[in-house]
Amino acid sequence: MTGTLPLDGMRVVELSSFVATPLGGMTLAQLGADVIRVDQVGGGPDIDRWPLAPSGRSLYWAGLNKGKRSVTVDLRSAEGREVAADLVAECGVVLTNAPPRPGLTYDELSAVRADLIHVQLQGTREGGNAVDYTVNAATGFPSITGPSGQETPVNHALPAWDVACGLYMAIGLLAAERHRLRTGEGQRLQVALQDVALATAGNLGYLAEAQLGESRPRLGNHLFGDFGRDFATADGRVMVAVLTARHWRDLVDATGLGEVAGALERALGADFRRAGDRYGHREALGGVLAHWFASRTCEQVADGLKGASVLWSRYRDFAEVAAGLHGEPLMAPLDQPGIGTHLAPGSPVRLGDASRPPDPAPLLGEHTDQVLRDVLSLPRQRIEALRANGAVGGP
Amino acid sequence: MTGTLPLDGMRVVELSSFVATPLGGMTLAQLGADVIRVDQVGGGPDIDRWPLAPSGRSLYWAGLNKGKRSVTVDLRSAEGREVAADLVAECGVVLTNAPPRPGLTYDELSAVRADLIHVQLQGTREGGNAVDYTVNAATGFPSITGPSGQETPVNHALPAWDVACGLYMAIGLLAAERHRLRTGEGQRLQVALQDVALATAGNLGYLAEAQLGESRPRLGNHLFGDFGRDFATADGRVMVAVLTARHWRDLVDATGLGEVAGALERALGADFRRAGDRYGHREALGGVLAHWFASRTCEQVADGLKGASVLWSRYRDFAEVAAGLHGEPLMAPLDQPGIGTHLAPGSPVRLGDASRPPDPAPLLGEHTDQVLRDVLSLPRQRIEALRANGAVGGP
Repeated sequence: MTGTLPLDGMRVVELSSFVATPLGGMTLAQLGADVIRVDQVGGGPDIDRWPLAPSGRSLYWAGLNKGKRSVTVDLRSAEGREVAADLVAECGVVLTNAPPRPGLTYDELSAVRADLIHVQLQGTREGGNAVDYTVNAATGFPSITGPSGQETPVNHALPAWDVACGLYMAIGLLAAERHRLRTGEGQRLQVALQDVALATAGNLGYLAEAQLGESRPRLGNHLFGDFGRDFATADGRVMVAVLTARHWRDLVDATGLGEVAGALERALGADFRRAGDRYGHREALGGVLAHWFASRTCEQVADGLKGASVLWSRYRDFAEVAAGLHGEPLMAPLDQPGIGTHLAPGSPVRLGDASRPPDPAPLLGEHTDQVLRDVLSLPRQRIEALRANGAVGGP
Repeated sequence: MTGTLPLDGMRVVELSSFVATPLGGMTLAQLGADVIRVDQVGGGPDIDRWPLAPSGRSLYWAGLNKGKRSVTVDLRSAEGREVAADLVAECGVVLTNAPPRPGLTYDELSAVRADLIHVQLQGTREGGNAVDYTVNAATGFPSITGPSGQETPVNHALPAWDVACGLYMAIGLLAAERHRLRTGEGQRLQVALQDVALATAGNLGYLAEAQLGESRPRLGNHLFGDFGRDFATADGRVMVAVLTARHWRDLVDATGLGEVAGALERALGADFRRAGDRYGHREALGGVLAHWFASRTCEQVADGLKGASVLWSRYRDFAEVAAGLHGEPLMAPLDQPGIGTHLAPGSPVRLGDASRPPDPAPLLGEHTDQVLRDVLSLPRQRIEALRANGAVGGP
């Protein structure tokens, strides 16, 4: 790299709200794209989404729009929509989860810009309403999440489908832009949240497993198909995962339980070098190991497992994570207007050795004038007239 | 699109195992890239990973390697590693979570191919061991997942960090390849699981929230910051999510509870058009709505909410999801050698209107001869000599 970022020179119009599409756009912005988020004057439905800063501004909005430019237009007025359509025609790439509006449909936009790349998020593929929470309920994961013995579904707190969907949108966009660079052809892409969840369940084997007759039980914090679970320590809790025979041997050696494990193998007719046997006898193995963890602090666990291949971590809550952020090279102080300075993440995609520090999110409408002038080449009088009409907003 | 896929002509060598890297490679393969997964003869550590088919083959491996070619070499022999290095030199793009081996380090590979694109998965950024389960424990999500009242952490069952990490790797690769197409320059990229989890926690506002003094409670199946929760129905359970004032109005109208909600607003001094008020009074609102759901079957709930903007879904377990797959356009019958025919997902990134049906995963080593011949242009005698040495495997 010679100082530039790999998506330098790429311009993307984002007509978006909530998580998936903004995350897709931000991911591109962090790799160098000029991402112009276009919102309704006054903000989209996510502008005040919780969590909020003490100032009342949305930390969620700020977190998902870092490094973009913000333009506001009145999407309810034909003139406002025309400005948005002109931006799309100029930039040639759209990332959106907005409902189609007159003047901003795919057909209208691609009629003006034949090589348009248009990436649309959907709920269901048929265009039905669906969001992360409802897709999650429909796809089966809450039925196997949560403490074993739990009888009702447990949602995961992480909006995992939104995250995956936004990243798939960015992938589709980059693939299509590569195709356009090589052939000149544009492309229409659609990514449905429901499809992302189903594809993931299929890719990981859950759907094949269910089709071929097996039904996976709810396992609490146990791993499926190998040995892994949480253990109480003298001062907290740790997660331990074994994925190979070597991990297991190292765990047994480090905890001094080789003889017990060997005797248990003989008594049970098991071979703990095998993942299936470790999984099948997870209760016995967990019982044997529990005391070692319970009689040690997390620090003593760290000492005891040092140098071994054992995969483990202490559980932390967000307050503890936040308190430890100063040591994380991914994080850098970000002075976010309206919110204040805090540590925020750069891109997890690292180019070279250092991380690029995060850029702040824009204020809503901050770049309206700048973008209308520099991208659309509108004269000052025209911008003023649009503002006077209410067709565009301002900072 | 003129019949080709957008990543047509891109060739990627994947030195991988488990979820993240294979998912990244498969995502590229489904968009047209020729992805050559290189494994140790006999298979990597994930070759027998559960879930297994009745035949004993891994459904997990098959699910994560669809549409790739498979080459096996003896990575413990210099000659085997040389074959892998030659493939990298020829293809110019590597996606890997393998530990660096002599002859296959970034420095050695990029010395031969100056414009190499090399994307490396890490556990922690410092190169420490970490996997989805341990990263999850370290990052805070288990502390807010699970039934409220739960005192110990609850892991989510979905390996969400692996999924996100694999997608970030694909994004990094595509961005770097775009840069190379335009400038001729290669690039080294690294994506750490720990960074992906931290970045996500930061992007979604959790880390800013914790830094600015708030601590989010465990909310069970409730949404944070708006009204959303699960409800028992007469015959199952549904998840309902409200994200806008319109969703709320529609929910109240559809359930005929407008008068009750209005009276409650007056009694509490609340305004349920506001997300914060809906969230703050979620227990009262849930109590008011629970009877409507409990006295209806899921089908009656569907009838009652038809035409309203209310976001909801029935909870299904994987057996129910599997039973409903025939109606899903994403899914198509896949005849997977060694496993049999089942419905498997294509790419959730849709180009045009139809989905491309999934391609089967290769058999381990299936394409060793083909790739050595077609990609490395090795004569038959040389391939036979390599096989006789044990430097490469076969189907």
